[in-house]
Amino acid sequence: MDVDKKDSIASDSSDQVVNPWEVSAKDGGKIDYDKLIDQFGCQRLDASLIDRVQRLTSRQPHVFLRRGVFFAHRDFNEVLDAYERGDKFYLYTGRGPSSEALHLGHLIPFMFTKYLQEAFKVPLVIQLTDDEKCMWKNLSVEESQRLARENAKDIIACGFDVTKTFIFSDFDYVGGAFYKNMVKVAKCVTLNKAMGIFGFSGEDHIGKLSFPPVQACLSVPAVPSFPSSFPHLFPGKDKLRCLIPCAIDQDPYFRMTRDVAPRLGYSKPALIESSFFPALQAKNGKMSASDPNSAIYVTDTAKEIKNKINRYAFSGGQDSIEKHREIGANLEVDIPVKYLSFFLDDDTELEHIKKEYGEGRMLTGEVKKRLTEVLTEMVERHRMARAAVTDEMVDAFMAVRPLPSMFE
Amino acid sequence: MDVDKKDSIASDSSDQVVNPWEVSAKDGGKIDYDKLIDQFGCQRLDASLIDRVQRLTSRQPHVFLRRGVFFAHRDFNEVLDAYERGDKFYLYTGRGPSSEALHLGHLIPFMFTKYLQEAFKVPLVIQLTDDEKCMWKNLSVEESQRLARENAKDIIACGFDVTKTFIFSDFDYVGGAFYKNMVKVAKCVTLNKAMGIFGFSGEDHIGKLSFPPVQACLSVPAVPSFPSSFPHLFPGKDKLRCLIPCAIDQDPYFRMTRDVAPRLGYSKPALIESSFFPALQAKNGKMSASDPNSAIYVTDTAKEIKNKINRYAFSGGQDSIEKHREIGANLEVDIPVKYLSFFLDDDTELEHIKKEYGEGRMLTGEVKKRLTEVLTEMVERHRMARAAVTDEMVDAFMAVRPLPSMFE
Repeated sequence: MDVDKKDSIASDSSDQVVNPWEVSAKDGGKIDYDKLIDQFGCQRLDASLIDRVQRLTSRQPHVFLRRGVFFAHRDFNEVLDAYERGDKFYLYTGRGPSSEALHLGHLIPFMFTKYLQEAFKVPLVIQLTDDEKCMWKNLSVEESQRLARENAKDIIACGFDVTKTFIFSDFDYVGGAFYKNMVKVAKCVTLNKAMGIFGFSGEDHIGKLSFPPVQACLSVPAVPSFPSSFPHLFPGKDKLRCLIPCAIDQDPYFRMTRDVAPRLGYSKPALIESSFFPALQAKNGKMSASDPNSAIYVTDTAKEIKNKINRYAFSGGQDSIEKHREIGANLEVDIPVKYLSFFLDDDTELEHIKKEYGEGRMLTGEVKKRLTEVLTEMVERHRMARAAVTDEMVDAFMAVRPLPSMFE
Repeated sequence: MDVDKKDSIASDSSDQVVNPWEVSAKDGGKIDYDKLIDQFGCQRLDASLIDRVQRLTSRQPHVFLRRGVFFAHRDFNEVLDAYERGDKFYLYTGRGPSSEALHLGHLIPFMFTKYLQEAFKVPLVIQLTDDEKCMWKNLSVEESQRLARENAKDIIACGFDVTKTFIFSDFDYVGGAFYKNMVKVAKCVTLNKAMGIFGFSGEDHIGKLSFPPVQACLSVPAVPSFPSSFPHLFPGKDKLRCLIPCAIDQDPYFRMTRDVAPRLGYSKPALIESSFFPALQAKNGKMSASDPNSAIYVTDTAKEIKNKINRYAFSGGQDSIEKHREIGANLEVDIPVKYLSFFLDDDTELEHIKKEYGEGRMLTGEVKKRLTEVLTEMVERHRMARAAVTDEMVDAFMAVRPLPSMFE
């Protein structure tokens, strides 16, 4: 059964809307991820698959796997089958450089991708869609490219291996083999299909449908899924499989890519998909770049982090200490606990906090204090790593070159 | 008055339809070029302008100017103003490589462009839109690129100066500065506008609207009009003007380009526009690549040329010799005379033929015989010139390089 073939590609039922532009649940409630898996037709990343990752990589699975942050996939099992037989794959992720400062939600796919690169020892391509941001966000070409380089520094600061990683700006890299694949993909998609899927109106720029589109259209995000788009990396390896770590709202793009792939003689890219990192105030949905108080930024000071957590992080604790001691916190809606489940490595400590807090022995203030420590340390570590990233290092990651230790 | 601003960009009245896909007049009659000038809002290329070309270039104007083949323009006078002040310009023309064999109609813009290059001593860029043909004609990338190189040989055989000419395939050249201009142009055009102008339906490929479009969309044909698209040719010369020789059915594309140009900080490209080279059988319209008997190909043998002219060239002569001697040929509909007016250089001989034939002293057979001689010689000359074009010469014309004697 080809689970990719669905008439409607975005999940847009009356209960919840999830597509690359909008994530919202009915009445501001929680996103139902089980339902999303059904709607999209992807597969649950279950315990047996996580065990298999542990076995194949001989290391503890990443916290994002253990805690179900990455919870869905397409064909990840096939990639592991091939890996077990000795076939490598490559990773592909990306970012639309629309702003200078990244928030913690932006880091999640990169932190996870770094883990996958280390654990599986595979090459990685990272696309910076400066062309798309230029088109959609009304940034100049020059400003889009400047932001791409600034964002590249944050990405590099996540710890990627320069001998296995190619970072590229579309404005720099589109052309040649990549452009040929763009045209091939575009040939496979009718305008009606594209407009229907992405809900374009006739007043949108033709560019939204046309060129840039990692987030916007179909061709550019699709193209890095095909190894022939990188002749300097994968010469003669047209059948190499690609694994894409991404948030689940990107699924519609890659479902289209997977439809097209076999028609062009390529393997379907596999996906490993995460839930959304919530805003400080909200119980669901994604962080918003437009409200700086909805997110912790990697540029925030320790004081700002403490202040944001104390003032804005939605608490599941009770209104009075008495009531809290009596019935405990509602962990389902508590943002500090949610954030700790993303970023507190220690499983034992997390379980302890959840138990104590959920049963009322620990107060919101204590949990927020622990979260402040965790995030301050993490942001400080990122800031130092980023400060050490030189322009020469950016040039090295972005150089069009073979990767020496690609398939070690 | 900005004559470019028209609501409907293609001429699509009830009397005649002229756009990049269709050229037809009511009841199969002649295209009314005067009316087309009014409809499109371009300017007539009048005798005073032709005199001015003669004066500025110190040579007899090309037969296509003397005989009104190139009959309309946009801002050509401004280009000449600047030229007279000592400012150079550059030429831009192109071809969509959809077939191996070119017919005589295909050669006309190249013959004329070669004259302009020689007369004004200016650089020239020639775009081969293999991307567009791949998209629209369902050719593979590889076949489109093969045809582009084959067509480049025919183009080079027209006698262009390698020290002043850059020929490029979109599949090879799109990227970098060119791609940046593609995105800039695309940002300026709404989807509605593009669809309205070009009459796309929702079932067309997104690619028709998106990437390739010299003939298809707006960005790619627009981009070579801007000197910054060629940083290896025109560094720091962003205000250099561009002159585009083309058939008048291409006007809608470049009207859009002219609208966009000032918004991107570029000069509007000037145009010099030709009427259509008629099919052998027809009194009007363009040659059709789908009917090999409607056109003389540069690959036709002397025997094929003679046969096609004798069998298919529509004659304005009378049904009987007696009647012909009495009232003479109808030169208005006579294809041999029309073809001679394109390709017989000698003004005196052409006038002699028109007088003798029009007054019945010369018969259709004699005119066809003379035309056969002229075309056979021309095709033979082309064939020899093309045979002398080596792959190394193609590589030389297509190399991304500065042009040494560009602004001599």
